[in-house]
Amino acid sequence: MAKNEVSITVIRRLPIYYRYLGELLDKGVNRISSQELSNLTGYTASQIRQDLNNFGGFGQQGYGYNVEELYNELGKILGLDREYNVVITGAGNLGHAIYYYRGFKRAGFNIIGVFDINPDNTRHAKRNMDVRPLDELEDFIKENKVEIGIITTSKEIAQEVADIYVRAGVKAIWNFATIDLIVPEDVTLESVRLSESLFTLSYFLKRNEGLKKEAEEKKN
Amino acid sequence: MAKNEVSITVIRRLPIYYRYLGELLDKGVNRISSQELSNLTGYTASQIRQDLNNFGGFGQQGYGYNVEELYNELGKILGLDREYNVVITGAGNLGHAIYYYRGFKRAGFNIIGVFDINPDNTRHAKRNMDVRPLDELEDFIKENKVEIGIITTSKEIAQEVADIYVRAGVKAIWNFATIDLIVPEDVTLESVRLSESLFTLSYFLKRNEGLKKEAEEKKN
Repeated sequence: MAKNEVSITVIRRLPIYYRYLGELLDKGVNRISSQELSNLTGYTASQIRQDLNNFGGFGQQGYGYNVEELYNELGKILGLDREYNVVITGAGNLGHAIYYYRGFKRAGFNIIGVFDINPDNTRHAKRNMDVRPLDELEDFIKENKVEIGIITTSKEIAQEVADIYVRAGVKAIWNFATIDLIVPEDVTLESVRLSESLFTLSYFLKRNEGLKKEAEEKKN
Repeated sequence: MAKNEVSITVIRRLPIYYRYLGELLDKGVNRISSQELSNLTGYTASQIRQDLNNFGGFGQQGYGYNVEELYNELGKILGLDREYNVVITGAGNLGHAIYYYRGFKRAGFNIIGVFDINPDNTRHAKRNMDVRPLDELEDFIKENKVEIGIITTSKEIAQEVADIYVRAGVKAIWNFATIDLIVPEDVTLESVRLSESLFTLSYFLKRNEGLKKEAEEKKN
């Protein structure tokens, strides 16, 4: 029987706590209260304690949390206590940016292959990325026990790439293509929606402009 | 007095509805019920109706929603009914990827300048991006009425760039640097946290592996 499901909203806060705890660790801070974490993160102290209680009794009343211990425990919960073999398909600008992003390797995500429908595109050569053709993808995944597949292709071929990933045994897909992918239930799918972030920005930009105008009209 | 605040969780669903409605429009679908939208988006019909009711009475009982009308109304609410002048600072891989992403221009976000602390880096020349030095940033923003500033620099200089943006009059900042920025209350700040998305993926990958093992052990 599956354990009690922790809600997705709680789960999405864990990497945020993890990031702040990492920064505290870098600064040599040993101990932190839920109130101090609240001041840093913007979540209430009560919310933070509740969230963490889903996973164990990490804190001590009157003491707070041991930063290193909590950081390591959250790391385990987030699956960051091991390394993963990762491939990228889609060697364009975004795939290139992900490939060279150093933070992922530091966190244990090793991008060991980059694939593209057009591997001989000379732009790839200039970028010093060794790009392989799509027809080598399935065997490469199997031979290298690749568990995570990243998709940075156009939306037209994203589902085809996801299908290869699934067939080859990839366990999780990180999708940047602007399309909903269909994958089996036991394959983890996480999509990054940059447009949604930008449109949230424009929502607030417009709203703040509106509020400013209202405030100015009131003065007059 | 500020209007009733709509919660951020509702706001973040609006671009999702907008995206699906755009796809329906492309397919020539004229009309959709909240239940059909629910099947597409995964949110309950009741949630969708509630969300949209915050902004007006768009639907009609028994009819549902007119796709084009709802799409346009959401577009207005999201501030997508106009164009914006945008700059990018940080001409590395990620800045490059954002610069060439066609979806943003189509949505009205015109990237009219790219800046970098090292504009003569030869990698920029190969990418066909005209990169300007940081000391031209403030004047450029003022002269071109730039409202949105994107930050794709390393975290070390991100706050300095944000300060220039604010001083020059930028109204919203889209931040990709892995650091919390400090900006005045009237400047919209939206941060993209790729690591948080990836660590959510690894959380579920690990959890699904655990569930699979449990299921297999039960069979034995």
